[in-house]
Amino acid sequence: MIVTCTDFGTTGPYLGQVHAVLARAAPGVPVIDLFADAPAFDPQSTGYLLAAYATSFPLGTVFLCVVDPGVGTGRAPVIAQAGERWYVGPDNGLLDVVVRRARGARWWDIDWRPAQLSASFHGRDLFAPVAALLARGGFPEATEYDPHGRIDRTAPEDLAQVVYIDVYGNAMTGWRAENAHVGWRLLTGGRALPHARTFGEVQPGTAFWYGNSNGLVEIAVNRGSAAATLGLAIGSGFVWE
Amino acid sequence: MIVTCTDFGTTGPYLGQVHAVLARAAPGVPVIDLFADAPAFDPQSTGYLLAAYATSFPLGTVFLCVVDPGVGTGRAPVIAQAGERWYVGPDNGLLDVVVRRARGARWWDIDWRPAQLSASFHGRDLFAPVAALLARGGFPEATEYDPHGRIDRTAPEDLAQVVYIDVYGNAMTGWRAENAHVGWRLLTGGRALPHARTFGEVQPGTAFWYGNSNGLVEIAVNRGSAAATLGLAIGSGFVWE
Amino acid sequence: MIVTCTDFGTTGPYLGQVHAVLARAAPGVPVIDLFADAPAFDPQSTGYLLAAYATSFPLGTVFLCVVDPGVGTGRAPVIAQAGERWYVGPDNGLLDVVVRRARGARWWDIDWRPAQLSASFHGRDLFAPVAALLARGGFPEATEYDPHGRIDRTAPEDLAQVVYIDVYGNAMTGWRAENAHVGWRLLTGGRALPHARTFGEVQPGTAFWYGNSNGLVEIAVNRGSAAATLGLAIGSGFVWE
Repeated sequence: MIVTCTDFGTTGPYLGQVHAVLARAAPGVPVIDLFADAPAFDPQSTGYLLAAYATSFPLGTVFLCVVDPGVGTGRAPVIAQAGERWYVGPDNGLLDVVVRRARGARWWDIDWRPAQLSASFHGRDLFAPVAALLARGGFPEATEYDPHGRIDRTAPEDLAQVVYIDVYGNAMTGWRAENAHVGWRLLTGGRALPHARTFGEVQPGTAFWYGNSNGLVEIAVNRGSAAATLGLAIGSGFVWE
Repeated sequence: MIVTCTDFGTTGPYLGQVHAVLARAAPGVPVIDLFADAPAFDPQSTGYLLAAYATSFPLGTVFLCVVDPGVGTGRAPVIAQAGERWYVGPDNGLLDVVVRRARGARWWDIDWRPAQLSASFHGRDLFAPVAALLARGGFPEATEYDPHGRIDRTAPEDLAQVVYIDVYGNAMTGWRAENAHVGWRLLTGGRALPHARTFGEVQPGTAFWYGNSNGLVEIAVNRGSAAATLGLAIGSGFVWE
Repeated sequence: MIVTCTDFGTTGPYLGQVHAVLARAAPGVPVIDLFADAPAFDPQSTGYLLAAYATSFPLGTVFLCVVDPGVGTGRAPVIAQAGERWYVGPDNGLLDVVVRRARGARWWDIDWRPAQLSASFHGRDLFAPVAALLARGGFPEATEYDPHGRIDRTAPEDLAQVVYIDVYGNAMTGWRAENAHVGWRLLTGGRALPHARTFGEVQPGTAFWYGNSNGLVEIAVNRGSAAATLGLAIGSGFVWE
């Protein structure tokens, strides 16, 4: 299975062209779009999202990860292996969280280059062919490095920021619910929000935090938009009390 | 064939995770996203939409229907069989219209529960595995009920309300065109709209109603947005004259 | 491979119903959505987009092209063969650019009609079945014409207008980069924009033009929205200096 995590958007020609490459290079392999609207130009926020969502996929899954504001400049294209899953993307922090949380993670700079490489769309021209190759059991020309020498070791284990606003206006954070306590209140936007187990446990219009279905602390309003109600956006911070 | 009808949105990680479950549990079965933007938190409007769109799919199709504001509370997960098609979703009114319109519909409470059931995402954890099982010819642990004892018998046969606004701004209603007459005018937003057969039959900018390609009365403006022109939203009412 | 290029939107029931037709009529054939948000009601702009994006797909690809404001009126449904690829859609200018740029293009009016043809959704009822048939090596009842007698010969080779705004706010034009010079400046919105090779070569916030990954001149702002910064929309013109 190949899983995409990109900021290409659900509109426009980008994701379709990537699917076309995958369909030709890895015929019959299911391709799942996990995030097509990962935080644009924001590898850090996407990294915390990816780390939370990747672990629910089967071992052997290949993640094609492209949030790549530096495309066409010096940043390296890399492969990471972490927790028996594969990650392909740019070396710009996007894969750091998933690598840091896995024991025995491995890391390669991709040396292979396609015959035709555009300056602005490495997702299609370079990362997708490599993901397809991995999904078929192959491996490109690459140079292994110690990931601990490459990733940002100063980034926090859990990020006390909003990393994603979903279609309902729920605000996912980079904080894992397993590292929070149901007795804590989450302070943001001038409000102190209590914990609830799920939406239906609070009155319509009430704001709360809960551990979402992928283990992230999420700020929500029952039958309403937490982002609109509390003025939250990607990057908004919070504190616990 | 498995067909999804949800309010998960086309963005974010929800639909992708459901696709991943289906790809693993029913490999090779085509999965079609019919509505990813069904009216959010609104099982009633979605029910009228679903009933109009489901009948154009082949016999044996399994519909995975999730508009589920009560997720994690007491509402039952159910299976309905109606018109030789299968429907899986929450018992919150979503399936009532399709059941009521079919002769010999059957209805089961799903007793099976997955090993891991999140509080907020039964679409992925419970409904998708059941839909995959049905698509492969299986059946989960379930208890059959008389559907006529469960569904809302007071809901109107046809709903004189807008149930969906499409990407062009056309406003679909819950009224079947076969129950309207081309000589009628549709009154809404202070306007009386005549019937036309299709867009190209009226001048650009002109508002009209027509029977859409799935048999619903739809309010439209040629090369314009009926929703913007007439101030329509989901739930807006109309009357015939 | 079947590739869709439509203005159906990524939301709503249109694209899903087309996918359902294709899944049944051409099982196992990969279906790629290239554009679901082609410029609405605008066959001309879409034609320039399509011509730029189609040539990167393999020979034999079938393009299902539906931007069809005249649906249900007199415009003919047609098949074009150009550059060893197939195009199915309405005869409203949508296919003119791709036909004109190919040597030895061929053109057929589709005479076949389905048993049930809605007045407003020929994409599902007529064009999708024909595309599926072509993808399986068949051919419908059709009458061949000389395309040069049908297409608009007065349209410019390259169009000095914005034809698409992508999810980041980049503005694609109908001008091929191979027909521009890197020393030229692009004048639009009261600004004169220099060329750059890719985003990372200019400072964040800087506007520039470049040849995008499919060979079109595109107006962009590094880590920003060119459309918002420069007030661009589909149809906005530019001149070279």
